[in-house]
This record gives sequence, C-alpha cells and structure tokens, in this order.
Amino acid sequence: MSTLRQDPTTRAWTIVAPRRAARPHFAVIVRAPDQPEHDPNCPFCPGNESMTPPEVHRISNGAGWHVRVVGNLYPALGGDGAADGNGSGLFRERPGVGAHEVIIESPRHNARLDEMPVEDVGAVLLAWRQRYRDLESRKQTGAVVVFKNAGPMAGTSLNHPHSQVVATPVIPPEVQRRFEVAKDYFENTGRRLYDDLIRSERTAGERVVEERGTFVAFVPFAAPGPFETWIAPTAPQPSFAQLRDVDVPDLAWLLRRTLRAVRLTNDDPDFNVLVASAPAGEQAGRWFSWHIKVLPRLTTAAGFELGSGMSINPVPPETAASEMREVLREDAPA
Amino acid sequence: MSTLRQDPTTRAWTIVAPRRAARPHFAVIVRAPDQPEHDPNCPFCPGNESMTPPEVHRISNGAGWHVRVVGNLYPALGGDGAADGNGSGLFRERPGVGAHEVIIESPRHNARLDEMPVEDVGAVLLAWRQRYRDLESRKQTGAVVVFKNAGPMAGTSLNHPHSQVVATPVIPPEVQRRFEVAKDYFENTGRRLYDDLIRSERTAGERVVEERGTFVAFVPFAAPGPFETWIAPTAPQPSFAQLRDVDVPDLAWLLRRTLRAVRLTNDDPDFNVLVASAPAGEQAGRWFSWHIKVLPRLTTAAGFELGSGMSINPVPPETAASEMREVLREDAPA
Repeated sequence: MSTLRQDPTTRAWTIVAPRRAARPHFAVIVRAPDQPEHDPNCPFCPGNESMTPPEVHRISNGAGWHVRVVGNLYPALGGDGAADGNGSGLFRERPGVGAHEVIIESPRHNARLDEMPVEDVGAVLLAWRQRYRDLESRKQTGAVVVFKNAGPMAGTSLNHPHSQVVATPVIPPEVQRRFEVAKDYFENTGRRLYDDLIRSERTAGERVVEERGTFVAFVPFAAPGPFETWIAPTAPQPSFAQLRDVDVPDLAWLLRRTLRAVRLTNDDPDFNVLVASAPAGEQAGRWFSWHIKVLPRLTTAAGFELGSGMSINPVPPETAASEMREVLREDAPA
Repeated sequence: MSTLRQDPTTRAWTIVAPRRAARPHFAVIVRAPDQPEHDPNCPFCPGNESMTPPEVHRISNGAGWHVRVVGNLYPALGGDGAADGNGSGLFRERPGVGAHEVIIESPRHNARLDEMPVEDVGAVLLAWRQRYRDLESRKQTGAVVVFKNAGPMAGTSLNHPHSQVVATPVIPPEVQRRFEVAKDYFENTGRRLYDDLIRSERTAGERVVEERGTFVAFVPFAAPGPFETWIAPTAPQPSFAQLRDVDVPDLAWLLRRTLRAVRLTNDDPDFNVLVASAPAGEQAGRWFSWHIKVLPRLTTAAGFELGSGMSINPVPPETAASEMREVLREDAPA
C-alpha cells in the first residue's frame, strides 16, 4: 500500500507509491546532442557579448569573464514603473514590473555545474547572491526567485549553462506559504521549524545524502518528486542574501556533489535548481531559513497533480538517498 | 510590458507575457504514430477484458460495452483500511487508502472525445458522475478527483482513450483552497463567487468561447496557461455529483467542442481535463460551483513556476478565446 506524507514546510501531501515505479515510463527524455566547447551562434559564448541584452554584472578572471549576468531577451517581468494594482471586481490586474535576468555560468558552451572546478561553482553562487541582494533592495520587489532550468523537460532549450533570477512585484504564493508555515510553527512551539527539521533529518540519518561544513544535503521525508534533494544551512538564515563569503566554498562543493549524485543515479536527467528564500526585506525572522532544492524532472505532473495540488512520488526518499550515497562513494570528490 | 492577473477562484497570480511567445519553443511535442482501431496487445481493447484489474462499472450497448471502469493497475491509492495518521513530529504519515480507477472511454482503440458522437461523450460523463457519487459516499473519502491525461506531455503513454478517478483520504490543498476562497467571498460580499464570475465573463464576452444550454466555455481572465478553458454551469452546483441527467447532453456537446477548438488552434496538443469539485459531502454550500478545466500542455513548468507558485502565460486569454471562436466558426458542430 502507498503512504501519504506531509511536508512540514508547506503542509502539502505527497503520495509515496513505490509500486508505480514499475510503470513502463517515468517522463519523456529528450537528449541534446553533444555540445562543442564554443558555439559561434550561441549568444552566451565569448565573442558574442553584443548579442545579449545589456550586462548587469560580471565576475572577471584576468582577461575574460567567469560569470556574466545579462537581461533576459524575453523577460517575464521588467521595468521600474509603479506596481499599483488596477482592474476591478473579479478582473484584478497589475503591471508586470520587476526584473528577469540570466546568469551565464561559464564562458564554456559545454560546461556543467557538476563538472566545473568547485571555485567556479562558487563564482556562480556569488553571482546569485549579488543579484539577489541588488534586486531585493529595490522598493517594488516582493520577492527574488533564483532558479536554474537544465534541459527541455525542465523548461529550457538553451544548452549554454545558465541560471536565472526574477524579481516579482508581489510575494508569490509559494514564498508566502513557506514563510507563514514557519512563522506559525514558531508561534505555536517557540522553536524554529528548520532547526527542528534539520536536526530530525540528521538524527534519522537515512535520508541524508552528504554533509559539508555548515550545510547538509538530504532527500526530505515528503519529497514531492523522485530524488528531490534539499541543501540547507544547519544554522537557519532567513534570506539567501545572508549567505556568508566564508560558507560559499562548502555550499559550492555540496551543490556540485548533489548534482553529481542526481546525474549518476538517473542517467543524467533534466533538472531544476531553485533557491527557496524569505520574501524581500525579511532578514530578521529567524523562524525561516533559505534552502536550495534540486529537482530532477523524472515524472510529469498530470491531471491528478494539477487538479489536487498533491504529488505522487514513485521512489521512497530513503531509497533515493541510499542510492545517491552509493554512487557518491564510488565517485571521486572534487 | 507584461501584466500580472489574479485568479479570483484560487488567488494565484499569472504573468501574462505575450512577448515570450516569440521564444523558439513552447514545450516538447512527442507524437504517437497513428493508432489502429483495435490493438490486440492493448489491455483496454475488447477481448482483453481479463488483462485489466476487476471491473467496477460498465455502460453497455446491447452486445458489447460503451464505457468500462476498472481498477488502475498501478494504483496511487487503494484499500479500505483506517485512514488514521501516524508518524510523529515533523514526519507525518498516513496510509494511502482510497481508490484509483480508470474509465475506458470507448471500445475503439483510436477513438477521441473530440471525434466521438456527442452521446458517447455523454456516456463518459455519466461514468465520471457514477464513480464520483460512489467513491464520495465512502466514509474515508476526503475528495474525489476526476481527470484525463491525453498524451505523454500530459502524463500518459497509453493511447487507448481513458480518464481516471482518484478518491483521496485527505482534502487535497487545491480542492480546499478553491472551496475556502469561494466561502470567504460569500462571507465578505453575501454573493456567490461563481455567479459573479460567470456573469462578469459573459458580460465582458471577449473571453467566452461558446455557450450551450446551461453551460458556458470561457478562457478565464487569469488563465495560468495558454488556451486553458473552463466549462462551468451558469447556475452554481457545488458538487459534480449534482450534475443532472437532463444537462448531460449539453455538457457533452460543449466539452467536445472545446476539445475540438484546442486541437484546431494548436496542432493537436497533449492536454489534461480535470473536474474541480467540492470536498466530499459538501453539496449544500452553494457559494462554490464545480467546473471542468481543459489544459493544453503547451508550456513546461520551469524553475520559476515551481519555486514561486506563479504561472507565465505567453498567450493573452482574449487572444486564445478569439482564435478558438474563429476555428469553431469553420468547424461543423457535432
């Protein structure tokens, strides 16, 4: 029989249904052909800097650049106008102000976070934090969402390694919910949800993939999808803006190792990475803590998931974590 | 500039960003080859009835069957045990009791709802309602979710036309949210949300696709995805269990026409259909109304959507509705 598990950070229910793993397919997999180190037609490759919208940030390395941040050519949100609502009654509408930027993670067209030197992954994290801090400080920003789409099943067809950052003029519902659930827990118990959660996971141990410095990677008890893995600081920090320089190398090491484990357990799946953080300006309420989610796209949200808001996970989190630890034992650390 | 629109039935925000439609792709499309009328290896084809789990319902037509309902071979939920929770602290868990059934919509392997005679679509709706009523009446049921997955991007690889029904032991978060938002609206205004919404859409007119009898099909103002279309009764009924026999032919006609419009505007996309209904047993609170959602899978939820709970819709609902009306003008009604 399957079991229902409830995520204490969102209160969402996941159906853990191992027998469904016997179904003939997980999701559709579409493989891109092997990529060259440099693609003269790629707008993100060195030499083509003029093909992108204006640069907003770069991390340099002597002659060239390591990481480059530019506007998104097809921004979902943009501009600085007033964010006041208009529309009336049941047709509420407001201008799509905010920002939508692309973080080009490497000058190399075929680079991958799970193969880069750890210092280069650290440069990407520093670019995320720099853009997070800058966009968060704008008066109109409700929240900053940092994410990465890798592969067509994860929502991108661009091969050059990149991530994105969006500043929204409202507090998105998932950001709000995570923050409120943690606040509610603090008010009810006097304790911090993420302290308790991370201590419980480390004590149980069976879902922990790996630890490094002040970070732990684990497959959460109620993971909505197979091999979904969270990387969290062991001491809560509400906002990703608060990530300390001294902690970046450990976080980079653990993110790289986690992506490596996802790749080796699942034949290199498409995946998303996202940074769950507090709403803009909420750096004081230590009841919350930012964390990174790595989501391999191994299943497809179908009618049941879309209609109910529940998830079906065919791989028990304990099994996923065990398989990830196994492949990492045989893989040399960076 | 894009705009943000808020769905009054869920309070979710959608970013309507028309310029993003210029992006090189919507979603991955994987086409199945043309199917035969009968596939000797298909467990849903006549003659193979013994290949499925036990039959729970059928609609007959003289010698054979029109519609057949069987257990799902890989059930996400099942069994009748106690639905009590267990687990403790942050690891809350409960047995996955409930039901998961498959509605085989036709004996013909290559039949499609948008090509069937309207009476046959009506037989499918009657099977949905029969299973809804039966599963809702079980003591342990929190909600009944009726849905259809058509094509691999919508979560199925089975070609034989089918839909599904799941009875959950909890009230799923989306079912709960829709119900509470409508109740809240009633308490604040003394009016019924779905009365007001449907009147507003019919008055505006520009997002209405078509009407038939006591039903209206429209692309909602804040549609989360391109060409998402709702079919709603013009007089609210909280539960899909309350669909009246006399209304089934009109609903079947309008569902078939809507699927036809989605197919003709978008080169036959994969799609989901889902029935949004009240939690089990909630037939009295007329502040809510069931409705059917048709969701073409033309975009992929990427990191931003997964992390924020917001949607990005590259096709303004007014444009989608206008294109759908256009193709229907040239398509003969059933």
